[in-house]
Amino acid sequence: MNNVSFDFGNMLAKNIGEHGVTDAEIAEAARALPGVHERMCAGREKMAWRLLPYDQDEIVKKIKETGKYINENFENFVVLGIGGSALGSKALFAGCCHLKYNELPRETRGGARFYIEDNVYPDKINALFDIIDVSKTAFHVITKSGNTVETMSQFMIVLSMLKERLGDGFKKNVFLTTDKEKGILRKIADENGWETFIVPDGVGGRFSVLSPVGLLSAAVLNIDIDALLSGARAMNDACVRPDLYENPAYMYALLYTVLMKKGVNISVLMPYSEALAPVSEWYCQLWAESLGKQVNLKGETVHSGQTPVRALGVTDQHSQIQLYNEGPFDKTVTFMGVEKFHTTVTIPKPPIPMPDLAYLEGKTLNTLIASEMRGTRHAVTSHGKPNNTITVESVNANTLGKLLFFFEMATAAAGEFLGINTFDQPGVEAGKIATFALMGRPGYEETAKELSKTADTEEKYTFNV
Amino acid sequence: MNNVSFDFGNMLAKNIGEHGVTDAEIAEAARALPGVHERMCAGREKMAWRLLPYDQDEIVKKIKETGKYINENFENFVVLGIGGSALGSKALFAGCCHLKYNELPRETRGGARFYIEDNVYPDKINALFDIIDVSKTAFHVITKSGNTVETMSQFMIVLSMLKERLGDGFKKNVFLTTDKEKGILRKIADENGWETFIVPDGVGGRFSVLSPVGLLSAAVLNIDIDALLSGARAMNDACVRPDLYENPAYMYALLYTVLMKKGVNISVLMPYSEALAPVSEWYCQLWAESLGKQVNLKGETVHSGQTPVRALGVTDQHSQIQLYNEGPFDKTVTFMGVEKFHTTVTIPKPPIPMPDLAYLEGKTLNTLIASEMRGTRHAVTSHGKPNNTITVESVNANTLGKLLFFFEMATAAAGEFLGINTFDQPGVEAGKIATFALMGRPGYEETAKELSKTADTEEKYTFNV
Repeated sequence: MNNVSFDFGNMLAKNIGEHGVTDAEIAEAARALPGVHERMCAGREKMAWRLLPYDQDEIVKKIKETGKYINENFENFVVLGIGGSALGSKALFAGCCHLKYNELPRETRGGARFYIEDNVYPDKINALFDIIDVSKTAFHVITKSGNTVETMSQFMIVLSMLKERLGDGFKKNVFLTTDKEKGILRKIADENGWETFIVPDGVGGRFSVLSPVGLLSAAVLNIDIDALLSGARAMNDACVRPDLYENPAYMYALLYTVLMKKGVNISVLMPYSEALAPVSEWYCQLWAESLGKQVNLKGETVHSGQTPVRALGVTDQHSQIQLYNEGPFDKTVTFMGVEKFHTTVTIPKPPIPMPDLAYLEGKTLNTLIASEMRGTRHAVTSHGKPNNTITVESVNANTLGKLLFFFEMATAAAGEFLGINTFDQPGVEAGKIATFALMGRPGYEETAKELSKTADTEEKYTFNV
Repeated sequence: MNNVSFDFGNMLAKNIGEHGVTDAEIAEAARALPGVHERMCAGREKMAWRLLPYDQDEIVKKIKETGKYINENFENFVVLGIGGSALGSKALFAGCCHLKYNELPRETRGGARFYIEDNVYPDKINALFDIIDVSKTAFHVITKSGNTVETMSQFMIVLSMLKERLGDGFKKNVFLTTDKEKGILRKIADENGWETFIVPDGVGGRFSVLSPVGLLSAAVLNIDIDALLSGARAMNDACVRPDLYENPAYMYALLYTVLMKKGVNISVLMPYSEALAPVSEWYCQLWAESLGKQVNLKGETVHSGQTPVRALGVTDQHSQIQLYNEGPFDKTVTFMGVEKFHTTVTIPKPPIPMPDLAYLEGKTLNTLIASEMRGTRHAVTSHGKPNNTITVESVNANTLGKLLFFFEMATAAAGEFLGINTFDQPGVEAGKIATFALMGRPGYEETAKELSKTADTEEKYTFNV
């Protein structure tokens, strides 16, 4: 069943003019494709995220049971995780659930209220505690290393609150997902008799949505996990083909890396769907962390990467399109459209005369949003800006599985075209180390001393108002 | 009372190395400053948004009364507006209200539940109708021209629903803000006896937050409007000074436009505060639409503009910082920090042994988030990336007034440095015209014919999965 399409016609110079990709550039870049394909095939076992749609039958069964148990026993479900431990769940939640889910009555919802706490902003966390009863809340704590200071701090806070409210029974509100052998959270789980879900080796945070990291959320939200994974499998079938013109991930990766080399350093993802808005957030991590690298695999300094930008149609037409149309030739825009929405809104004849708007009467918002996407794409194209379009028949578990897996495969392929390590993130270490030092973690005393020598701000460079 | 600071030390080559701005570059750019200053002074009357903090006593009185009336008579308040008609309200809502406001009980909230509908996604609008009783809902319809197809469609839908529920009394749920003389909504208001609030001439959407466009939301949310406007006045005082080193808006504008000329085409705004997150969204419109221009005032083709990116600390450390640190030298990052949060969360000693995390016990999330910002800034700086820091003592109406007005003045000054028209948006017309044509609006038949000739997608460029 074909229900997701990727149209790249407007990326091409022959359709949009000089700022597009020429046939010669495609041919030149395609010379690297056999090598890319070989490495993608050979790397499949190491990229364990590619196996997730195939090898989780037992785990999925367990996850579904756990999801059911949580919905039967708790009023709220809270994900404690950050980055890749949160963004996949956000995408699934918006994509498959009512857009005011938590404000619906329980009987309409059918499951626990759902929250993701992916920050340590004190007022936000306290705001959550103001509206939930922690004793009736299940917490899903996610960190592969157990080293994530934000998540572990939240965990410490929640544990104390649970103990205070529930006494000895406090452990039953906690569900853990971590490494199978290593790390601080593994140790805590073992010492306290918590069963855990596992983040398999070779599944980095930003590639973990189809592991228990995202799937437990899916189960609690009554999302069709089988459809999600079968969507991913269908996309995998298309993205392992050797031929550029048969493999959407290779085509995406090739066109984007060609444009990156030509100075196009911004990639905008602009879904015309609030249900897909968090997919852009998820994509922003995937694309930024995977491709933003100081050195390539040969050890040469390259400072590679393209800055992903999330926009939302039609809303951001009234915010960003002026820049996209008239500004520099420094970006591509991916329009994401939906063919069938779950509901229809018809614009009626109003109860007062509005002759200037009569042309809208009887039309639907469904037609309006589709026309706006088409009109905006037409404008972006006529301004000579490269763009492409992903269309999903309807936003559901199956099409989300395809979409997410498509972007994962495209990102992995882009990393191969660029010759970088797609799966590490050495550049976040410096900030983590400084944070540990400032928080007084043992072993970081030297950095702390260094930091204390650096003035944080200097008066001569500071305005105070 | 100084409670907002702007620190630009890390924008300078002498502090961060070759990718910063040199003293020579500042001196060179500052030669344009007298002209910039002259035009900023001369343009004050035309830029009517600069008068908003000063000339609204009567209007503010009326707005406060209306806000009180709405809270006494309605359960919900819904803004129907898009772009500049929505983003200011979003910033005020997050900045001054409880972060789970709508989920609090009415007595804790103190006012109507608050929603902003700035899209025409049918499932989202239906989701809202699922949770509100329209007969108990006040709608604030905002469009200066009355030509905004999204807002007017929503208005038509809501009017019909109200009429069906309330019969002849349906008009009392509707509050309008539009032009004082012209446009479709003006005509409708006059014909139907609606009083309206006015968007004054010279106040474009993206500069309208301190007009009734944003202030009615503020009143309904019980935000201290006087403090908001007095904050804006205090910032204005700082931003009208002629000297670069005394005027934060001029310094911001100069440094950014110097970097833009050197190829820095991305500006990241990264608040370490969920309460300030929508300020980045608001800034994204302001900066993008104001500076993204095809031609300058001399009529030369320039394709100016810098792409604004919103990020959120600490969350996006786990998503974007890898790219910011190791990727291309193509961006600046503005860190926005908060000194005092409204609440405190202490990390307790947990009820189970966690020796590896003992260093966190007794520390607060307040310290953690501040340390993370400092650590991340340290890392970004050591990677040689230009950055600056805005610190607010605490997020409230007064500091928000300062912040918003600062960015407005900085944007206006940047437009003067670039020699472009900061206040128009000709590049959004093409998309609007195409949308009107596709929706069958009379007068757009020619465009419709043209569009029907353009195939929307071509099979040979499309993958179907």
